[in-house]
Amino acid sequence: MTARSPQTSAQATQRWRLDISYDGTAFSGWAVQPGRRTVQGELEYWIPTVLRLGEPVTLVCAGRTDAGVHARGQVAHVDLPTADGVDGDVLHRRLAKVLPADVVVRTVRPAPAGFDARFAAVWRRYSYRLSDHTTPPDPLLRHQVARSRFALDLEAMNAAGATLLGLHDFSAFCRRREGATTIRTLLELSGERLVAGALADTIELRVRADAFCHSMVRSLVGALVAVGSGRHDLDWLAEIKAAGIRHPTVEVMPALGLTLEEVRYPPDHQLTARAQQARSRRAADALGRTPAGADV
Amino acid sequence: MTARSPQTSAQATQRWRLDISYDGTAFSGWAVQPGRRTVQGELEYWIPTVLRLGEPVTLVCAGRTDAGVHARGQVAHVDLPTADGVDGDVLHRRLAKVLPADVVVRTVRPAPAGFDARFAAVWRRYSYRLSDHTTPPDPLLRHQVARSRFALDLEAMNAAGATLLGLHDFSAFCRRREGATTIRTLLELSGERLVAGALADTIELRVRADAFCHSMVRSLVGALVAVGSGRHDLDWLAEIKAAGIRHPTVEVMPALGLTLEEVRYPPDHQLTARAQQARSRRAADALGRTPAGADV
Repeated sequence: MTARSPQTSAQATQRWRLDISYDGTAFSGWAVQPGRRTVQGELEYWIPTVLRLGEPVTLVCAGRTDAGVHARGQVAHVDLPTADGVDGDVLHRRLAKVLPADVVVRTVRPAPAGFDARFAAVWRRYSYRLSDHTTPPDPLLRHQVARSRFALDLEAMNAAGATLLGLHDFSAFCRRREGATTIRTLLELSGERLVAGALADTIELRVRADAFCHSMVRSLVGALVAVGSGRHDLDWLAEIKAAGIRHPTVEVMPALGLTLEEVRYPPDHQLTARAQQARSRRAADALGRTPAGADV
Repeated sequence: MTARSPQTSAQATQRWRLDISYDGTAFSGWAVQPGRRTVQGELEYWIPTVLRLGEPVTLVCAGRTDAGVHARGQVAHVDLPTADGVDGDVLHRRLAKVLPADVVVRTVRPAPAGFDARFAAVWRRYSYRLSDHTTPPDPLLRHQVARSRFALDLEAMNAAGATLLGLHDFSAFCRRREGATTIRTLLELSGERLVAGALADTIELRVRADAFCHSMVRSLVGALVAVGSGRHDLDWLAEIKAAGIRHPTVEVMPALGLTLEEVRYPPDHQLTARAQQARSRRAADALGRTPAGADV
């Protein structure tokens, strides 16, 4: 293979879907940042290297996880030139050989028409793992389980979670970004105490929404922990939610407990419509016009 | 509390049982070695420190794991002076505050009469986790799952495991030690492919025996992998076993896949008899007289 000329808009490309897992401990999150080790940075370095492309590539992901957050179900897409030697199986095999052990590309598949890892997603699901024991959690899982200094009442947490479900302005739980909406549909926010295996007696929360704004999952968990520990009650939570501004009493929980578990896409024939809908909502959000956005 | 005078044989002591978990990745195994970081070394440093004892303490464990081997169910005992401030709950709480995150003392309990973590044990159970996929395993579990370059036939592995059960001389699978027996009773050696959770499709082997000699578990797994990959058959395994000397074709599998999961002790009223029996067997073993030993 020889080096290729720089990519132009005229060059034919094929879109690929990558399913990715990573241990976020040693990454400064997904998104490329100068001088930092990031998941996107590793992949955007290695993909053109193993395919011997002459031009850089750009990955678009479903959930731009923060520093220290893990993923078992991250999804990204990348457009690659339709040229000799650019093949999903080849890319998959070569990445397995060169990627550092804390990031794994599980599958590389041709993306169906209309697929967009970010805009075509219907929902994202995260888990948050939390131990409220005085004894530290299993040391083999210490990078995946956050600790609470307080004993937690799981029923109270689930009651609190239920009051936050649905279409709301989650600005009380979001780090503000200029022009980004904080209106989201929260589909699931509840937990259970695991009963078996290495994580027995650990609380595992499921948090699922059409999309999340920055620090939203960890703030929602922080609010549930405030209620579950008895420091605050449901009235407090209702006030926080209604206030509509980021509230200093809502703790942003540590990143290590958080894992992006799954991203759901619609059936292939609805991909294009879903992505268009999400994009137009987001554009309108910036003007304050519509109630739902597709930002991650 | 003041520093105590050096321990003498006349000083009254109480024996404590410690249940311990650790991530073996950054330890040079359980047993103290000069200049190396070991689990025993960490505990023997911190126990007298947090109790402000004037003398050193010695821990005796059920399974002296090698460098890189993990434990969820290690058991140890330690004799501490019966003096002010020496209390299991206090020790447990203080250790939780000072121990590094890769070792956790889960419980500290007064040992029943006759308890000896090493000699009173009835059996030890290890797990070995192994992935035979071309895609690397979940990066969050990469320090606990070994990889096989070959696709493995689990049925063939289980058939091989069954031929090794019972009371045998396991010298073909043991690193020789002067005066140590290699005769053991292997109680369980079989595996399954996990179907759910983060370890789905990983092979998990259970290996259980009255006791193990050095490198025995990893050599047994290596022999099963040789059969499961189709490189060798049951005749080969029978020859290896009969040869009675360490065999170079039996691979000692990597430490990271191995975890000491559980140690079983008899009911309290049988502890003394069990420990005496194990001790006298071991003494006789050194003279070549009896068929079973209690070394770990």
